[in-house]
Amino acid sequence: MTWLDDVADRIGPLDAVAVAQATARLDRLTKPPGSLGPLEALAVQLAGITGLALLRDDRPVVVVFAADHGVTAQGVSAYPSDVTAQMVANFVRGGAAINVLARLAGAEVVAVDVGVAGPIPGVDARTAGGARLVSTRVADGTRDMTHEPAMTRDETLAAIGAGRAVVVELLAGGRNVLAVGEMGIGNTTAASALAAVLTGRPAAEVTGRGTGLDDEAMRRKVDVIGTALQRRQPDPADPVDVLAAVGGLEIAALVGESLAGAEARVPVVLDGFITGAAALVAAAIARELPARLIASHVSAEPGHRIVLERLGVRPLLDLELRLGEGSGAALALPLLRAAAEILAEMATFDDAGISGPS
Amino acid sequence: MTWLDDVADRIGPLDAVAVAQATARLDRLTKPPGSLGPLEALAVQLAGITGLALLRDDRPVVVVFAADHGVTAQGVSAYPSDVTAQMVANFVRGGAAINVLARLAGAEVVAVDVGVAGPIPGVDARTAGGARLVSTRVADGTRDMTHEPAMTRDETLAAIGAGRAVVVELLAGGRNVLAVGEMGIGNTTAASALAAVLTGRPAAEVTGRGTGLDDEAMRRKVDVIGTALQRRQPDPADPVDVLAAVGGLEIAALVGESLAGAEARVPVVLDGFITGAAALVAAAIARELPARLIASHVSAEPGHRIVLERLGVRPLLDLELRLGEGSGAALALPLLRAAAEILAEMATFDDAGISGPS
Repeated sequence: MTWLDDVADRIGPLDAVAVAQATARLDRLTKPPGSLGPLEALAVQLAGITGLALLRDDRPVVVVFAADHGVTAQGVSAYPSDVTAQMVANFVRGGAAINVLARLAGAEVVAVDVGVAGPIPGVDARTAGGARLVSTRVADGTRDMTHEPAMTRDETLAAIGAGRAVVVELLAGGRNVLAVGEMGIGNTTAASALAAVLTGRPAAEVTGRGTGLDDEAMRRKVDVIGTALQRRQPDPADPVDVLAAVGGLEIAALVGESLAGAEARVPVVLDGFITGAAALVAAAIARELPARLIASHVSAEPGHRIVLERLGVRPLLDLELRLGEGSGAALALPLLRAAAEILAEMATFDDAGISGPS
Repeated sequence: MTWLDDVADRIGPLDAVAVAQATARLDRLTKPPGSLGPLEALAVQLAGITGLALLRDDRPVVVVFAADHGVTAQGVSAYPSDVTAQMVANFVRGGAAINVLARLAGAEVVAVDVGVAGPIPGVDARTAGGARLVSTRVADGTRDMTHEPAMTRDETLAAIGAGRAVVVELLAGGRNVLAVGEMGIGNTTAASALAAVLTGRPAAEVTGRGTGLDDEAMRRKVDVIGTALQRRQPDPADPVDVLAAVGGLEIAALVGESLAGAEARVPVVLDGFITGAAALVAAAIARELPARLIASHVSAEPGHRIVLERLGVRPLLDLELRLGEGSGAALALPLLRAAAEILAEMATFDDAGISGPS
């Protein structure tokens, strides 16, 4: 039994007592039963994840794992690989969308370099609103999956372990809600390849335009994924093998993050397609994990809806986002807080002396 | 020309210069163009409404207009009319969903009694988190629309004027975002009747279960609306006549609120079906008004989507809410803030030294 099996064994179902208490309380609050829609299910889920009937005092963190992808050599992205390092620098200086959105949600941003290919420019220039940078580089990006496996098995396990270790430390420091984010030019290609293997759907169904491919580049991207899958033949029953064959360093770290959050009974708020693909891998490792995931949104990438359906999670927002960085997760944090506070703060019919249905 | 025509004349199209500036700036920010989906359109709309390319420092207020409905005598609601006054008291004591959601969004709640039928119990017990109560009662609820017009024309104009006056004062006090809310047992019946007249759709298509009717009560509700429309025969070309015939005091006040917000170039954030029906009336008075409306969500009421399509506005959230009170509007306030702050705060590609598409 590996350490990964041990982690999986520690991830159990939701706390049934907390779920029952939260459900009962919701129906006594001064509102028609069910009138807050999926926010009510979210309040119950948060109670079940944390084991607390009344979840309060959230201290969220957005962890943005960054790495590069050898497959960009195949022309699968609208932007050059350099942009990964440049955007990490932008996170540190506070100029990216995630800095703005996390600040509004009261969340810290931690950028984690798991395998950015080049040096990160000007990282000493961290501003007040900028992300904290953690370096836990496993390799200088992945290899081109069309020529060889993206990572070795050891690299893959190291990246999962690195993601898990960063999160364990953040949780020990008092953070209690994990918003999941990523940055990596080329990573929708890796995510589509993972999704194709783990859902059994053809590459064309789970591949989209990423940051904005034209029709020709889009056809090339589907071909590249098809070629990689045919050459690598990853074993769908072995999630680490799939990740090594066609995944990414930041995606492996995201798997480690989900596992660490689930182990610690902390809500894990997914972002877009790449984080969804990573969650599929994590769910293949730990079967009970999906109950602990919150899908912040469904993105413009066609594979995202398919991945969320496979995970059995329902997205809160549908804003056609296609940015990544944890942007959708940050936008959904106020909904988590709303669900938890509704449960904790609203008056009951009895308290308020209000008549029930006539 | 009436004062209402004067108000309508002061409501013009969006500020074209601010729209152009916001659009140009969005495409220079460090993200793939369009990758924030409808949030980008929202940022542009907010700029166009306010005339500011960089909208900052929002100070939102949720105005919850409350009144009773004579048509409840026909058994169209799952709850008795008493609940309107009881819920207003709940707002004042801070125990309702809107108190929790407004607090989280940094918004004040102002409850406005435009025509609650009985006394409001215990209104001296306002708590720190409770709503401010404003009394501007026009009548003790409406009359039963199946027997006579719900309001006289004078009452209708008085309620529109009351809503407008409350909002003018709140804006003078420094509030600069209006979230629109309502409370009134029976008011989905009035809203469905208004929507049927103003969209030309059959009552059955724009009528839903409100706070939770069973099948039999639902059939009765559709019949009651059909009977009222047949007997009243309101003139679709005269929005005040339609409102008087089958509307409500709080709905008339909501019309006044939308007009006042649009006049003052302040964003008007709609809530659910009732506020949407009121916006249809306001749009029939002032043609340019819909461009200044923000649809926070589409609710579980089937008529809501039809009303929003007619208004030409796209909902931000789809959370199957059916609570009212301004709850959906309050939940969407963080998205308005996010859109405005993205525009104001993010770095541009030039600032950040980031490569564009390759």
